[in-house]
Order: sequence, then structure tokens, then C-alpha cells
Amino acid sequence: NPETKFILEKFGFDDPITKTSYKGEDVFITDTTDLALCPDDILDANVLGVVDHHKLGDLTTSTPLEGWIRPVGCSNTIVKEMFDYYGVEIPSNIAGIMLCAILSDTVIFKSPTCTKEDTKAVKELAKIAGIEDPKALGMEMFKIKSAIEGTPIRELVMRDFKDFDMSGTKVGIGQLEVVDLSLFDDKKDALLDDMKKLKEEGNRDFVLLLLTDIIKEGSELLAVGDDLSKIEKAFDTKIVHNRVWLDGVLSRKKQIVPFLERVFRES
Amino acid sequence: NPETKFILEKFGFDDPITKTSYKGEDVFITDTTDLALCPDDILDANVLGVVDHHKLGDLTTSTPLEGWIRPVGCSNTIVKEMFDYYGVEIPSNIAGIMLCAILSDTVIFKSPTCTKEDTKAVKELAKIAGIEDPKALGMEMFKIKSAIEGTPIRELVMRDFKDFDMSGTKVGIGQLEVVDLSLFDDKKDALLDDMKKLKEEGNRDFVLLLLTDIIKEGSELLAVGDDLSKIEKAFDTKIVHNRVWLDGVLSRKKQIVPFLERVFRES
Repeated sequence: NPETKFILEKFGFDDPITKTSYKGEDVFITDTTDLALCPDDILDANVLGVVDHHKLGDLTTSTPLEGWIRPVGCSNTIVKEMFDYYGVEIPSNIAGIMLCAILSDTVIFKSPTCTKEDTKAVKELAKIAGIEDPKALGMEMFKIKSAIEGTPIRELVMRDFKDFDMSGTKVGIGQLEVVDLSLFDDKKDALLDDMKKLKEEGNRDFVLLLLTDIIKEGSELLAVGDDLSKIEKAFDTKIVHNRVWLDGVLSRKKQIVPFLERVFRES
Repeated sequence: NPETKFILEKFGFDDPITKTSYKGEDVFITDTTDLALCPDDILDANVLGVVDHHKLGDLTTSTPLEGWIRPVGCSNTIVKEMFDYYGVEIPSNIAGIMLCAILSDTVIFKSPTCTKEDTKAVKELAKIAGIEDPKALGMEMFKIKSAIEGTPIRELVMRDFKDFDMSGTKVGIGQLEVVDLSLFDDKKDALLDDMKKLKEEGNRDFVLLLLTDIIKEGSELLAVGDDLSKIEKAFDTKIVHNRVWLDGVLSRKKQIVPFLERVFRES
């Protein structure tokens, strides 16, 4: 996506290669311990360790390993801790992309997932990378992320899309973070139409899309499903024309998923 | 057991209470991530973190957590790391029992599971606890552990006993660590008789007992089961009268379990 492209180019990295098979190889898994999010043959790999900031998933290993799991805003904050623990100097360009990852994951420190460890890591990484104003770099990044003009609708819906199984209910939730929600003014109908298709194609019960305004600090939720009263109940709100503004909501992980899980567990 | 009793008394601790239910409570899980080894209602507890030195098990959580997992010889080596990370001073008596745990788990540094992190932790904990010769304390501990006279046979077999499911084969493996194997000279027949009973009672396929001599640095394996050729194959050896000496074997986790798992996976 354009954000990743910007970061890689800024700090002089080539595009990473896409690798899907890891049988027999030594690997360190980052950003998840869910089998569903790992490569298909991960159980045949030699998992040396995991680095993650999500809840503990269903991955298991056949040998003892290193586990670096912290309830912080970004896995790169933990990677920074590992560099320090092992006394390894962080190269300037790597510090740069790590810093961008933390700024992105924490929505420039605004997300409720952001911790003081994240802000501290960015401060130290900025020094190493020679970035004088990390927040300004973050805004530059989010402006690039906001450039949605000309992008196919399906690509927008799928850009950051995750499927969840909530007590048997299949819920797909996408999120788009922009610097100004009005960018979507003439696109919401098309987005909703595509979400309806996605619901049928994937045999999902609900498809949700968060249009997050990082300046206003809130999200407009677009929702498609047979019984939207469930979604209304989760957020104690009223959905009109498949839309509702959720003030203060920036984090899918912390402010959306747990509330939906509770409603579907009870029903 | 006598070893734990000795350690608690030496450093002035009361016996810990046994608590089996944790519903709704904040907990830190130590020394395992296997659901089978956790309290029954652990999924209803609020798991703040895990500290472990085994392979990654099937525990999952519903919220992000701290995971401190390291391939070291003892979980207390990791607890020491956590004290240092958070800049918390370790009280002298707690340093004492932590040090004893590491000496026990690593068989006074002789086990192949022992790492340089473990020896370093013991060195630093000894300083805090005012223990001049940790190895001597370790030997004292293992001598107390070796005092098996008068202990019921079943209690000996079960003292450190774990059940494993190896590709459908049920294997129970106990271990007794002593300073002199001859302590068992007049007990092996009784131990084997009881292991046969244990095999039937628990519907197990095999019951094994490691009699580990920490001075000679090896273990006599007592084995009960319908087809002992499987066990012979795992260790490339010959079992005579249900017994065999395995030179250099001190660790069930590293030198016994993986070899059995391989044989039962293949059969």
C-alpha cells in the first residue's frame, strides 16, 4: 500500500519479498500467535520465538522458545526492547522504519492502545534515525495513507480487513484511517454496495468498515448485516442508513472487537 | 515434599496455600502454557501474563498480555530478569528461594537444560541472599531430596510424575533425583510393581520412572508397558528386567520426551 511504499523509499529499502512457506526453517513470528494468521506450514517450521502485542492465540510449538509479548501499541516497541536487551546497536535506517510502524499502529500516539513504552521507543528511535519531529513525519504518513482517489473500491475495503469468528458469528471488519473524513463523502454508497457483495461472497454474517478520522479522533462505522440491532446494542447507538459516528473510537482491537464479542457471546 | 519444606523453612516462609479456582481474578501464570496443567477455570480468569521456559502450549487469552518466555533452565531465571527490567529490588529471602529453584531445575548446573543465563542469575541471587556457596546449598538440597527411606512407594512414583499424550499413546513419566542410586537397590521391584498398577489404573500404555543419579550424571530407566521394544528403539538400547542405565541422561524434558515422541509419531 502507499504508506508502506513511502516508508520503504524514505529509508532506502527495497520491497520485501513475499514468502509463504517456512517448512524446516528457523523463524521468529511477529505480530500474532494465531495459527490462522500464520503461514500454512508454520507447524513444520522451527519457531525460535514470538514477538507480539495481541492476545495469546492458538499457536503451539514443539520446543522451548523465546516469547516477547507485551500489552503495548506496536510490536516494534518490543523489537526495540529486544535490541536493547541483547545490546545490539540499531542501524539508523532500521530505526526509521521501526519508528514509522509505531506511529502508524498508535495513530501518532492518539490510539487508546498507545502506552508510555511506545512514546519512549519513538523518542529513542527518532534520535537514532535523525528524525527531528516524529509527529510531523506521522502526519505526512497519514496524509499519504489518506490519498484514496483513484483506488478501486474493493481495494479500499480490503486494505486492512480482518475476519473474526465471534461465538459462531462470522464478522469481517475493515478499517481506513484518514486525516479528513470528507474524503469519503462521495464514496460511502459504493463502499456499502461492495460490503454487501463481500458479505455474500464470504458467507459472512456481518461486514463492518471503520472510516477513522485521526484529526477529529473518531470513526464513522459502515455496517452491513441481516440484524443490525446487534451492532447497535454493542455500541449503545442507533445506525441510520447503515452508518453511525462513533466519537473517540480509533482502535478496532480495543474499542470495537471486544464489544461485538460480548454481544455475540450473549446471543 | 521434603525439598520444598527445607527451602521454605531455611528462608522463613510459611507453606503456600493451595488454591484451585481463579475465576474473575487477575493472574500471572508461571511454568506452563498448557491448559491441562492450569487450574480448571483459568479461561475465566484475567491472565495478565505468562512466565515460562517450556514449549508454547494451547493456552489462549481474550486480552493482550505480558509474555516472558525464554529457553532457559528455570522459570525463576526469567523472574529474575523481570525484577531487573522493572527495577524492583529483590528481597533477600525471595532471592534465596528463587536461587534454590534454579539449582533444583538445573540439577546444580549439570542438566543440559542449563544456560549461562541460569548460572548468571544464581550468581546474582546468591549475592543478594548472602549465600556464599550456592553449589553446596544445592548438594544439601539434593541430599534431602534423596532421603526416600520410609516414604510410601506410590508417593515416590508420583512425586514428580507427568502424563503425556504422544500421537495417541498415553505415557506417564516420573522422575526421582538422588545423590546415590544405590538408595534404590532394595526398592526397584516394589517400584515396578506399583508402576504396573499405575498403568492399569490410568489406562496408560506405558509408565516410566527415571531414577537419576546426579553425581554419576545418568539415569536408570524403569519401564512398564506391553511393547517395550518401542522404548528400546527411542533410546537405541536394550531393556533387561524392565531396567536400563542411560548414561548422561538428566533431563526428562530434553533427553527423554522428544525421543519418545518421535518413535510414537512414526508408529
